[in-house]
Amino acid sequence: MQADGQGYRFNPAFEAPGGSAIRELFKYLSRPGMISFAGGYPAPNLFDAQGLAEASAQAMANPTSTLQYGATEGSPALREQLTALMARRGAAVAEADLIVTTGSQQGLDLLIRVLLSPGDTVLVERPTYPAALQAFRLAGCSLASVPSDSEGLDVAALARQLEAAPPGHFRLLYCVPDFANPTGACLPLARRLELLALAARHGLLLVEDDPYGALRFSGAAVASLLALAGQVPGAQGRVVHLSSLSKIVAPGLRIGWMVAPAAIRQRCVIAKQTVDLCTSPISQQIAACYLASGALERHLPTLRQGYGEKCERMLAGIAALGGRLEVAAPAGGMFVWGRVADGSDAQAVFDRAIEHGVMFVPGRAFYASEPDMASLRLSFAAPGLDDIDEGLRRLAKAFA
Amino acid sequence: MQADGQGYRFNPAFEAPGGSAIRELFKYLSRPGMISFAGGYPAPNLFDAQGLAEASAQAMANPTSTLQYGATEGSPALREQLTALMARRGAAVAEADLIVTTGSQQGLDLLIRVLLSPGDTVLVERPTYPAALQAFRLAGCSLASVPSDSEGLDVAALARQLEAAPPGHFRLLYCVPDFANPTGACLPLARRLELLALAARHGLLLVEDDPYGALRFSGAAVASLLALAGQVPGAQGRVVHLSSLSKIVAPGLRIGWMVAPAAIRQRCVIAKQTVDLCTSPISQQIAACYLASGALERHLPTLRQGYGEKCERMLAGIAALGGRLEVAAPAGGMFVWGRVADGSDAQAVFDRAIEHGVMFVPGRAFYASEPDMASLRLSFAAPGLDDIDEGLRRLAKAFA
Repeated sequence: MQADGQGYRFNPAFEAPGGSAIRELFKYLSRPGMISFAGGYPAPNLFDAQGLAEASAQAMANPTSTLQYGATEGSPALREQLTALMARRGAAVAEADLIVTTGSQQGLDLLIRVLLSPGDTVLVERPTYPAALQAFRLAGCSLASVPSDSEGLDVAALARQLEAAPPGHFRLLYCVPDFANPTGACLPLARRLELLALAARHGLLLVEDDPYGALRFSGAAVASLLALAGQVPGAQGRVVHLSSLSKIVAPGLRIGWMVAPAAIRQRCVIAKQTVDLCTSPISQQIAACYLASGALERHLPTLRQGYGEKCERMLAGIAALGGRLEVAAPAGGMFVWGRVADGSDAQAVFDRAIEHGVMFVPGRAFYASEPDMASLRLSFAAPGLDDIDEGLRRLAKAFA
Repeated sequence: MQADGQGYRFNPAFEAPGGSAIRELFKYLSRPGMISFAGGYPAPNLFDAQGLAEASAQAMANPTSTLQYGATEGSPALREQLTALMARRGAAVAEADLIVTTGSQQGLDLLIRVLLSPGDTVLVERPTYPAALQAFRLAGCSLASVPSDSEGLDVAALARQLEAAPPGHFRLLYCVPDFANPTGACLPLARRLELLALAARHGLLLVEDDPYGALRFSGAAVASLLALAGQVPGAQGRVVHLSSLSKIVAPGLRIGWMVAPAAIRQRCVIAKQTVDLCTSPISQQIAACYLASGALERHLPTLRQGYGEKCERMLAGIAALGGRLEVAAPAGGMFVWGRVADGSDAQAVFDRAIEHGVMFVPGRAFYASEPDMASLRLSFAAPGLDDIDEGLRRLAKAFA
């Protein structure tokens, strides 16, 4: 079905939209024997396939609620389970404060629709999650970057940016405080409290995306911005929290959630009515049955240990590169962020790596502007341990 | 979590958005003994729960593709099955022409994002599906209505509207040619061909939404606009076709699809990357297994017979109202559209009906403007036969 010459007219953002730079790399995945550190996919061998099959059978045994349309806010059973999960994570929220979304990606999309207009400026971490950058761009927003270091967002720099801008200039800050994609950094408690104080002082909305927080394999957990907001005067109502089962249960569920102040949450529900009516009730019931069985809590240690072991193997392989790739060791999540030590272009390393049968993501996709071309992201999540070892040996050849 | 006084700023369309008028009626559903003709939900007793449980077990036995992220366009297995379904419906499309959406509601949402900008004018049938009206309104579009009669869209009236407007003024026409919600009308072949000729002459994009076409219980099928486009010079590339498994398999899957010209479809895929990344692979695999097993074709006659019987019972009960409610008999779908014969306000009938323990949808929610206040919609889909009989007896009291 060809459309050439039909003269379709598009929304200006869709006249000539760029697709995902990471998805552009997918074509290399089909090369025989390719080892990929590029994707952000969970490890298939760490899926609790048995637990999910049981949850699925349980869900299908109750067809009336599983097969019919559900409430736009999410099924009561799943909201109850997710509220309990948030409580285990140290955030006391009411079921009414939480809505189910079709992945946390939809949570961000709903927020953008409800809160933003073309021309609005939003703050993002530098570097940050490319699908968030793309979502803001397609909504016609301008992006302003806040620097980050090995501990995450540079809160002092943010303070200066907020002071220098007219009040209300920045409509929100999108951030991933725990094991951010791509940096793997975890924002320390002191910075979180400063960030909340800044949000209170400047009336800045913080969108906290937390897909990875439960995947900590070393060190002690740090409370989420949501959990801490009550401790900082004026910060209550300044945090929207997004999370997801994609990285800890299965992406195939497409189950995320949002905890947000009522005025924002209710508008997101109205937007969701026209977006997909409700998140798949089948997925919701499977997730609710899985969580209610206690399977997630039983499985989380396996996940943490599995990812921790993979991360360690990757860091060992990187050490063998003899300093040609500078990285920070993450305490959780799925990513190692690095920089070619001599400052040369990571794309050139990528081109050689492909020839040696290993791939990663050159870092430029993670920047709103002025990319550090020497940066790159490696994910240890999906490949097996042997492939991590072999992939790093191949990468060494690409660096040689 | 209260947000009062926080001074959030919203996108202008979300400053004070109205929710769904139909969802506002849900509060009455919880009254003891209430019989509802209000919803558009499929009959729970007509779900093929056994077939879907088997498909679900089959899908979960293949965890790698079921639990992981999938392609934004949809899983190859499901696209193959849906392409075959379209062929059985008389539309020869390539797998590449078809993408999976999270319900057909998402298909419409993606089209709106990609094609429309605030201030654009779109054409809708009068009356039409409220969630489409809401989606266009929240996108900041103006709505122009095309009159319809018992055979659906008044194509001659549309021709006059197109002639009178500047070229390109109307960005698209959203229509439901088969058993439209709310009218139940089915557009005859001659009108479809005229509509396609108008689309070709005026460069008008037709968005054909077809959730109900497979639910025909009398008369012969009429080919879809998509299937007919090739027969009308210049109409190729002027039709986007949306459909869904919600009404023929289960809404709980949230599986819809879109067939669209490449330029439109590719942009919808880019939009979908930021919306939900992909439609639930679990739902997709269940749907693919269900369709591949032939279960849908085996089950469709049961569905058609079941809804046909319910419709007949509802029409018999309406006949017993002695002409106080004027309706047209549909040949398929889920709805009977009517008008209070003396022209009085259907809301007044609704208020009395609630007191007698029966509910329906007053018609004003289905109009873009200038509603016919005497109109109303009754759905025969969800209630059982005895409830249909009893509901109509109660409705007679409300009319008395």
